[in-house]
Amino acid sequence: MTPERPLGVALVGYGYWGPNLLRNYMELPSAWLKWVCDLRPEQLAKVKARYPSIKLTRDLAEVLADPEVQAVLVATPISTHHAIAKAALEAGKHVFVEKPMTSDPADAEELIELAAARGLTLMVGHTFVFSPPVRKVKQLIDDGTLGDIYFVTTQRVNLGLHQKDVSVVWDLAPHDLSILYYWLGEYACSVAVNGRGCIVPEIPDVAFINLKFPSGIVAEIQASWLSPVKLRRTIVVGSKKMLVYDDTENVEKVKIYDHGVDFKDPTDFGEFQLSYRTGDILAPKVSGVEPLLLEAQHFVQSIASGDTPVTSGEQGLQVVRSLEAADASLRAGGTEMPIDLPPAG
Amino acid sequence: MTPERPLGVALVGYGYWGPNLLRNYMELPSAWLKWVCDLRPEQLAKVKARYPSIKLTRDLAEVLADPEVQAVLVATPISTHHAIAKAALEAGKHVFVEKPMTSDPADAEELIELAAARGLTLMVGHTFVFSPPVRKVKQLIDDGTLGDIYFVTTQRVNLGLHQKDVSVVWDLAPHDLSILYYWLGEYACSVAVNGRGCIVPEIPDVAFINLKFPSGIVAEIQASWLSPVKLRRTIVVGSKKMLVYDDTENVEKVKIYDHGVDFKDPTDFGEFQLSYRTGDILAPKVSGVEPLLLEAQHFVQSIASGDTPVTSGEQGLQVVRSLEAADASLRAGGTEMPIDLPPAG
Amino acid sequence: MTPERPLGVALVGYGYWGPNLLRNYMELPSAWLKWVCDLRPEQLAKVKARYPSIKLTRDLAEVLADPEVQAVLVATPISTHHAIAKAALEAGKHVFVEKPMTSDPADAEELIELAAARGLTLMVGHTFVFSPPVRKVKQLIDDGTLGDIYFVTTQRVNLGLHQKDVSVVWDLAPHDLSILYYWLGEYACSVAVNGRGCIVPEIPDVAFINLKFPSGIVAEIQASWLSPVKLRRTIVVGSKKMLVYDDTENVEKVKIYDHGVDFKDPTDFGEFQLSYRTGDILAPKVSGVEPLLLEAQHFVQSIASGDTPVTSGEQGLQVVRSLEAADASLRAGGTEMPIDLPPAG
Amino acid sequence: MTPERPLGVALVGYGYWGPNLLRNYMELPSAWLKWVCDLRPEQLAKVKARYPSIKLTRDLAEVLADPEVQAVLVATPISTHHAIAKAALEAGKHVFVEKPMTSDPADAEELIELAAARGLTLMVGHTFVFSPPVRKVKQLIDDGTLGDIYFVTTQRVNLGLHQKDVSVVWDLAPHDLSILYYWLGEYACSVAVNGRGCIVPEIPDVAFINLKFPSGIVAEIQASWLSPVKLRRTIVVGSKKMLVYDDTENVEKVKIYDHGVDFKDPTDFGEFQLSYRTGDILAPKVSGVEPLLLEAQHFVQSIASGDTPVTSGEQGLQVVRSLEAADASLRAGGTEMPIDLPPAG
Repeated sequence: MTPERPLGVALVGYGYWGPNLLRNYMELPSAWLKWVCDLRPEQLAKVKARYPSIKLTRDLAEVLADPEVQAVLVATPISTHHAIAKAALEAGKHVFVEKPMTSDPADAEELIELAAARGLTLMVGHTFVFSPPVRKVKQLIDDGTLGDIYFVTTQRVNLGLHQKDVSVVWDLAPHDLSILYYWLGEYACSVAVNGRGCIVPEIPDVAFINLKFPSGIVAEIQASWLSPVKLRRTIVVGSKKMLVYDDTENVEKVKIYDHGVDFKDPTDFGEFQLSYRTGDILAPKVSGVEPLLLEAQHFVQSIASGDTPVTSGEQGLQVVRSLEAADASLRAGGTEMPIDLPPAG
Repeated sequence: MTPERPLGVALVGYGYWGPNLLRNYMELPSAWLKWVCDLRPEQLAKVKARYPSIKLTRDLAEVLADPEVQAVLVATPISTHHAIAKAALEAGKHVFVEKPMTSDPADAEELIELAAARGLTLMVGHTFVFSPPVRKVKQLIDDGTLGDIYFVTTQRVNLGLHQKDVSVVWDLAPHDLSILYYWLGEYACSVAVNGRGCIVPEIPDVAFINLKFPSGIVAEIQASWLSPVKLRRTIVVGSKKMLVYDDTENVEKVKIYDHGVDFKDPTDFGEFQLSYRTGDILAPKVSGVEPLLLEAQHFVQSIASGDTPVTSGEQGLQVVRSLEAADASLRAGGTEMPIDLPPAG
Repeated sequence: MTPERPLGVALVGYGYWGPNLLRNYMELPSAWLKWVCDLRPEQLAKVKARYPSIKLTRDLAEVLADPEVQAVLVATPISTHHAIAKAALEAGKHVFVEKPMTSDPADAEELIELAAARGLTLMVGHTFVFSPPVRKVKQLIDDGTLGDIYFVTTQRVNLGLHQKDVSVVWDLAPHDLSILYYWLGEYACSVAVNGRGCIVPEIPDVAFINLKFPSGIVAEIQASWLSPVKLRRTIVVGSKKMLVYDDTENVEKVKIYDHGVDFKDPTDFGEFQLSYRTGDILAPKVSGVEPLLLEAQHFVQSIASGDTPVTSGEQGLQVVRSLEAADASLRAGGTEMPIDLPPAG
Repeated sequence: MTPERPLGVALVGYGYWGPNLLRNYMELPSAWLKWVCDLRPEQLAKVKARYPSIKLTRDLAEVLADPEVQAVLVATPISTHHAIAKAALEAGKHVFVEKPMTSDPADAEELIELAAARGLTLMVGHTFVFSPPVRKVKQLIDDGTLGDIYFVTTQRVNLGLHQKDVSVVWDLAPHDLSILYYWLGEYACSVAVNGRGCIVPEIPDVAFINLKFPSGIVAEIQASWLSPVKLRRTIVVGSKKMLVYDDTENVEKVKIYDHGVDFKDPTDFGEFQLSYRTGDILAPKVSGVEPLLLEAQHFVQSIASGDTPVTSGEQGLQVVRSLEAADASLRAGGTEMPIDLPPAG
């Protein structure tokens, strides 16, 4: 890609999520979304109505054969991620694949090796990593504002239709796992999961996912559907400060709580009222840019620079390994399961 | 006790919590707080300054020998609960003992048997059970407003001095365990706990406590010190409605979220903004009466009626058994531990 | 207009607000946005880039001469509203004109008469009247939920660039005036305004607008720029219930506060804590539909049905009369000014 | 008063507010509350039950004749403030009088002159001036954090019993007037009030009080009863920052909003969502000490030092003058009324 020539891009899969990718790539001057590929003619018709200039096809081979296509966006059902991404890499295309990367870690490993062997960029669509409040928290961890990180807890209680064929772990936990791995700069080494299928016993719809990290940090992800309101609350407790990140908040998405020095235990219920906190609270300004646009820009830039994307194949693989281990733990009634770590690089 | 004669009461232990009991019993027309017993003369001096009419002693025997003392309140360190409560029961006194009831389940069992054998009231000071919002939630569960209960999660992130000699499990979880047992009307049958000692490695200061109940309900308690702000949030998800109880809220401590019928999955980040919830939200009026006063009234009334108190010895025992199993699980790295249930009554 | 033929529409003015009208009319199957007219070629170029099928012109006469144009949307600077709308009405077109309708009440009166004489629809773009929470409040007033309305106060403290040539009264108060007139079903009969030009003394940037209504209801609008955060809070106090509407809230935009029966004055600062409210609080579900889309639909439907639009020319006129009187009061140092009411119809 | 001898104090009036003064003076080592004087034997009986050591009387003369009484606290109905305070000053006692100081400005002037002539301390019980968040705001104004103050608005929408014999202006506005005069360090020079008696037409129960200050600052106080929930929100807008003070907030009573540099007008409803604010938000730690205790300490210290109290007779007088002018404006339908300023000192 040169500055004069935008990156030629093909989108494969135009279902639930594909339209979001399409809309953002259309706004990106550095990319030229040339093709949309989907098996369903009615989906292609929708593209045509809005963007008559885009080429449409039901045949992946046609897309991969186009030398003007330099990168492929894979937004199909997860079971097809591996085959499509593999074909694209083998055709010499850079690949962006939606989360979770694959359903089997071995498939993810194969894609990573293939991309590395061919010098192609492989990126996974862990969009929350590009969300401005998540980036702000990363900055506050990295610059030492919070001090040493002690633990992280996160709640993701969701409204939304019950998924028919996948546990809540595979549906919701990829978001939080990718955020945690991004923030902490390390991968969990074990997981123990308690949960339950409240509606359909075989399909867990609530899960408490306990993670341990090599550094000693512990984290817990609460994931469930079933709620009539979205609840998000992530707490990051460090040796210096504590942080609360709530994505449902309009104005104060990130709040930093300072420790004070003059607190003491409450001695009665009256005093209890007076000691809710010990220091100042700061809600830093967080940008309102759309994460998907930042994600698209990052993919284009990673290809241009040759740098590994933040949401790399390796990160995608570790999320998949964590999900697989988490599901195994849940099926085993909560037994702690080790998670393979990538070879030290 | 007759209506004309208030209940003669002795308070044993005037340290951190004793003054709260004293203040509330002094406001209760149905009780006559006659004695305060404490080993420390300087603590007794504080009582004398405020309430010159109360008799003071360092000698428990003197209190127990007083035939006008019908009930003893035990607010001493936990390690002494058993001995003092036992002596009081053997002297024919009704006993109120602070939480946790004992450090050893066998000790709690002995107290229950002793009280039963002598026909005396034994009550444990799980004060939150008497908190108006907790009572309101109980009512909403019992009257079917929430439908079948699917799961409960609760966060108790506390500021406060780090405890020197006890894990965060023993310090904070008694509150949530007693609340859960009160709400659900059943006891947890197993527990798995992950956690960490962030400040002092041997003393866990953060714990994720996963509970299973015989009915299939699962629950999770997050407990930690280390925070510069109190965070409380309990979520009860039922088949009909969901409820959020936040004790740090001034006005809307309990919120009930109704399910609507017209929701669907968000299809992009814009629509995401528009689908935060699906139905009405109701914050019912909750009384502002002090829980400790209600607790004191309940103790007096339980003695008068002969009925088992809500926070019975059995409930106190199951909390202790749960704490012991939780601590064992935490020491074992998170292994699930069974919790003995009381014989079906 | 028949169901088979969408309404032919021309948009005049493609500056700050025009693009929003364009986008929404493009999504409306019942309208066919055929023309965009603007004096600035660079603005027309922007339309062309996004919507190549739309006809573009700098010449209003060309638009008005097109028999396929049945309705004209006027989104030009306020000083040109009257001339453009008048020309459109005289050409037999239905007219939608942005708020404020005109800068001079006499001009607004002329437009109303012209539309009436020709049997054309004249609607003013008071968009907030189409906002779902505003509509919900209207419903709660009309169905008697709040009882008799006692008073209304509203705060509109805005961030945003300081306007160079118009007072904050003309900039912000049209929103609240149109909302109040919609809710109460009557127009204010007098206004007294205190305010100040904090930055530029001649340009008021904060105004406290006191309104009296024929029924006895009083209302107050606080309007200002200068703030680093948007604050919105409208309180409607009725004989039965009170309502708070906060447009910056994500989830609970409208809250209804019920009166209880057991309250009393606080007698000390401790009890103060316990008496924040007297009854239940209900946050009803409010739809998330975009107000501009509802406004566009209403314009098309009003033309089709021949019914007077909710945001009629008369409502637009009374807003202009109120603004003129308010500005006069502000210049006179706060003297109460009468507002002419429309002849009783 | 010497360090060895606490200040001898008599409390006159043990009705709604007197018990709060009593309780706080009892906790003050530097004061010795010797007498309570009230005409109602049943009120004196309440004192006796709680504090048997306090001397009781129905005869003010007995109190004033006691040479050990150095200071008198006047907490009787407002109509008696002047006579009691005057008698106390004439008897050589320092005087603390509840708010509003008197119902007639001339009476307040007389008390000020009398106290000055005798070298006695005269303080008015504007308790909110001693509230920690109000003090924090004062500090932020005085240290220049907010920059030049542009305007202040405050809402005091109260639940509570409707007052039978006084307008909402006299009942609620003293709080906000004293806070404003304390913060701004100047007194309002004119007032215009719109309002209404919603329940009883002759008794205004909602009032919008518009104030002008010699420096050009404008302020508005919204006062009403009639609400089922307490609403408080005070906004102070300065040239550098804006501040919101909400006394019903538990944790973040004071929030400071910083201006950012990158804001612009929203151009559509979507972007609207993204531009709620422009800079960081800081909620500084505010102490939880009871204002009444600080007020009592300040009275004792002012007597000891001979310094004029913050809530001086002069401040009390200007509040009374403002209330009188506000009531006159309200009766006159909102006409602006001048407020006499104290002679420049």
